[in-house]
Amino acid sequence: MAVTRTAGIVGGGHTRWGSREATYKDLIQEAGKATFDSVPDMGPEDIEGLFVGSVQPERFAFQTHVAPLVAELLGIDVDAMIARTELACASGQAALRYAWLAIAAGQLDVALVLGVEKMNPPGGHMPEAQASMTNVMDREFDGVNGLNAPPYFAMVAQRHMYEYGTTREQLALVSAKNKRHAAHNEFAQFQDEVTVEEVLESYPLSPPLCLYDCSGITDGAAGLVLMSEEKAREVTDEAAWITGSGQACFASNSVNNLPSMSGWPQATTAAEKAYDQAGVTDPLRELDVAEIHDCFSISEIVEYEDLGWVEKGEGGRFVEDGRSALDGDIAVNPRGGLLGCGHPLGATGVSQALEIYDQFRGDVPAERRVPDPETGLIHNLSGSASVHSVMILRA
Amino acid sequence: MAVTRTAGIVGGGHTRWGSREATYKDLIQEAGKATFDSVPDMGPEDIEGLFVGSVQPERFAFQTHVAPLVAELLGIDVDAMIARTELACASGQAALRYAWLAIAAGQLDVALVLGVEKMNPPGGHMPEAQASMTNVMDREFDGVNGLNAPPYFAMVAQRHMYEYGTTREQLALVSAKNKRHAAHNEFAQFQDEVTVEEVLESYPLSPPLCLYDCSGITDGAAGLVLMSEEKAREVTDEAAWITGSGQACFASNSVNNLPSMSGWPQATTAAEKAYDQAGVTDPLRELDVAEIHDCFSISEIVEYEDLGWVEKGEGGRFVEDGRSALDGDIAVNPRGGLLGCGHPLGATGVSQALEIYDQFRGDVPAERRVPDPETGLIHNLSGSASVHSVMILRA
Repeated sequence: MAVTRTAGIVGGGHTRWGSREATYKDLIQEAGKATFDSVPDMGPEDIEGLFVGSVQPERFAFQTHVAPLVAELLGIDVDAMIARTELACASGQAALRYAWLAIAAGQLDVALVLGVEKMNPPGGHMPEAQASMTNVMDREFDGVNGLNAPPYFAMVAQRHMYEYGTTREQLALVSAKNKRHAAHNEFAQFQDEVTVEEVLESYPLSPPLCLYDCSGITDGAAGLVLMSEEKAREVTDEAAWITGSGQACFASNSVNNLPSMSGWPQATTAAEKAYDQAGVTDPLRELDVAEIHDCFSISEIVEYEDLGWVEKGEGGRFVEDGRSALDGDIAVNPRGGLLGCGHPLGATGVSQALEIYDQFRGDVPAERRVPDPETGLIHNLSGSASVHSVMILRA
Repeated sequence: MAVTRTAGIVGGGHTRWGSREATYKDLIQEAGKATFDSVPDMGPEDIEGLFVGSVQPERFAFQTHVAPLVAELLGIDVDAMIARTELACASGQAALRYAWLAIAAGQLDVALVLGVEKMNPPGGHMPEAQASMTNVMDREFDGVNGLNAPPYFAMVAQRHMYEYGTTREQLALVSAKNKRHAAHNEFAQFQDEVTVEEVLESYPLSPPLCLYDCSGITDGAAGLVLMSEEKAREVTDEAAWITGSGQACFASNSVNNLPSMSGWPQATTAAEKAYDQAGVTDPLRELDVAEIHDCFSISEIVEYEDLGWVEKGEGGRFVEDGRSALDGDIAVNPRGGLLGCGHPLGATGVSQALEIYDQFRGDVPAERRVPDPETGLIHNLSGSASVHSVMILRA
């Protein structure tokens, strides 16, 4: 179905991501200020709708009702629409989707989207954060048995290696590529390049996944300003237009009910819907840049396949042949990905969309700049990859 | 701005609300089944989008990523849109609003909206639930000092009594009215009628508010099916059409920053936006039925005023004169309200909308049936009343 009314990203801001000596509120204010600073002649008084992505401030910051908290901290009088969205690791993209819907449905013209997560507790006491991450999975079937993200994605990696001959080196190539990009991203949590050998020799976390195959426990926030086309054209001629959206979940969430352990057909359904809406008929040729959900190195390889870029089982070769490099078929995760930037759950999708906007304008360091991109994709999985979320953006 | 594409409620289902020997998942399944049972010839395979309202399953059920949990439990293959929405006590209405947006923006035709909260822990150990409710307020300024809902609304009551001469008896009249309705609602948590005297003599919880001036700690769920007009007309000629929406938050959340202690001008802004969109020019004459947020008896009195039905300060007289009774100017809270039904946070807004749908069809017991309603309103406040959310429905 065609989009009724077009909306575009016209600005955004970012905090440094990492283990931050900052509260949940500090992160909101830091990202909010950067976001407002990015759009000249626009201030809090222009915002009509506020869309917050955050996963579990209830556990990490002992705070709920977080959307008005953001309004208060940023001085925004909301007079049209306000709420916070949770879809685990895809919460930021979900918030962006609802802001886009509000504009598409003619309900408002100017929206602020803000994603935030404060995961590292003061003093670095990690058991609470680690325990809380087990509730992203089905708590009664999976989380209670200690199945959180690393062992689930390790099983996916094992199964993918078994079925398709994917190698440890191919996984490591994903990490090395994304961390190389992150080394040139001032906001990234991890800014050291690592070699394939260093990935392979890093601490074995959940075999075959080692430490450098995994994203981090991260504090961070990012914001976006989304405007209707009419309004956007008043402030800029460089918007990133949202042209397609897709999400899918196959009546499954706990690991036992997933349709596959080596693939995510839900990603295919979500992507096809988004491609269709955006008029993308050959994604491999038409997509120039993609920010996809590399929470673990294996994820990116499975996504090359299930987003419809290569045949099933060819994902390992895709990275090995440099086809996901900056000068490859599709430049994948030039931001540094989750592996390089870290993964403050609710902020990741917002940061990914901001990266596409920045790449369209060429406003990134030369070392990780994609040559003249016109079409971009953002993708998030969430939970035990039970849900996949895709959006297409055009310059 | 006009709504681009009309959507209507065509069915819904409800669990019994109360202190339930049921898990979070049990409640989802019970409401889900009732919802599917309410729309003949429609099943999980027809649902394109899933919109879940829930506040803090992270604390109450140690579970996040709850939207796919609902998809799994109800057997729904989502292929268009899925997420959960949090706006504290208004989360259910927020989920409904996003489902409506998705249809209005032409992204899907059939949506399931499900609100759920499991607040009472097994064995009735309440400290966790009580502590968790302090994070609905600003945790650092308000919650940390023990300011949760009862003392905040008690302050509003005190200030309203001081400024306008509102009486304890007028507050008690609200409770007696709504609990009388709840006595004829099979799903309500509290099904005993109480007299004004009994309200006044109940346990003083946070003066001037006594026990029967307060809603409950409640487990419960409710679901709705929302369809585009085209699709809805295929299955029913009795839909409840969503014709207006408004939300407002005045850059304030913590109690110190609220614009007033005796009124909620945000409610006025939200209501005016919704009235304008729905073409309601004289709400007192045009609204037939309203489900408004009586988390405490004082709330309903303030809302009579700030939703624009009577002059500021006249709310107490409005109930005293029977103008909010079933046969009054506007029948307010025929469902039994939060005072009678209880308040499972994420489910309340969904249940309110379902009541309007049921009232339009006359599908409620005679003792609480509104005579031939054609226009209805739902209203929720959230947190320390920092956000107000309003929707208008028409038969």
